[in-house]
Amino acid sequence: MCMEKTPWEQAVEFHGHACPGLAIGFKAAEAAIRELGYARDVNEEMVAIVENDSCSIDAIQLILGCTAGKGNLIFRNNGKQVFTVGRRNDGKAVRIAPKYEVLSGAGKDESREDKMKHILESDPGDLFEIREAKLDLPEKAVIFKTVKCARCGEGVMESKARLSDGKPVCPDCFADYTRGW
Amino acid sequence: MCMEKTPWEQAVEFHGHACPGLAIGFKAAEAAIRELGYARDVNEEMVAIVENDSCSIDAIQLILGCTAGKGNLIFRNNGKQVFTVGRRNDGKAVRIAPKYEVLSGAGKDESREDKMKHILESDPGDLFEIREAKLDLPEKAVIFKTVKCARCGEGVMESKARLSDGKPVCPDCFADYTRGW
Repeated sequence: MCMEKTPWEQAVEFHGHACPGLAIGFKAAEAAIRELGYARDVNEEMVAIVENDSCSIDAIQLILGCTAGKGNLIFRNNGKQVFTVGRRNDGKAVRIAPKYEVLSGAGKDESREDKMKHILESDPGDLFEIREAKLDLPEKAVIFKTVKCARCGEGVMESKARLSDGKPVCPDCFADYTRGW
Repeated sequence: MCMEKTPWEQAVEFHGHACPGLAIGFKAAEAAIRELGYARDVNEEMVAIVENDSCSIDAIQLILGCTAGKGNLIFRNNGKQVFTVGRRNDGKAVRIAPKYEVLSGAGKDESREDKMKHILESDPGDLFEIREAKLDLPEKAVIFKTVKCARCGEGVMESKARLSDGKPVCPDCFADYTRGW
């Protein structure tokens, strides 16, 4: 990565601002790397299943290298700050869940800034319950071929195309054509 | 961003590899920035609606600053390399769709490397149909409070919690408890 900046500074720049949620994801990503013995993912060696779509996910993407565009960041929108990260070569996976006190602030009247600092300075073992997980990892991302929509002329992934008069059409044109039927 | 690297090099590093799909997203992000007159998004000034979850999305995230963790990257999985990007202050939006020939390679027997290079060196007007779009932009991301699951003790976003004997439970514990009922 950029030699001028610390990993945290890079995560903040990618996300756009520093916040406690980003700090949770940052520490979870560090913990996953330590537990799985990997550096940042290059080509889908790791898969992260994330149970929310909040700020923390941007740290997971930047630090862990499991990204929305690479097919190894799976959204399971459960409303929980839980991250399950596995490696493909042997299926070893860890489930990283913040302790409730960390998320709730344990009744402390901390500012957002203090909460974030506290998270960043903590040991992962104080922040998270980390346990081994069993995981059926999804296959590596598949690239489907592109076909031309017979109505709008734009390209569409073949697996998403539908048929109209024997010709492939994209989902939008299909919806117009069938008017919901 | 990092002064040592070009924006394209940064996108490649974030994604993990260089490929034609990343190049499409990179050029689309540049076009969106030019059309909307913004630099990289900091705090949800822009929203990107993407119609696929392929490599291109990582360039959208890195260059445009519309990221999965910030709530301003909306997935509409239509199987199309189409990017609609709007700005919040006045609702101006553009729909950026690669010409079919760009996606299909126009019958040219180019290597992936050559295809990528060709995309990166092209003018956006040669690559994309760019038109104004009308867009009902979603509200800025909302932060819900965290409640403690009465069964597993983990934190869960209140809006995702369900009720068991009058107490909040997370979706997983709710599913165990109701056994699908």
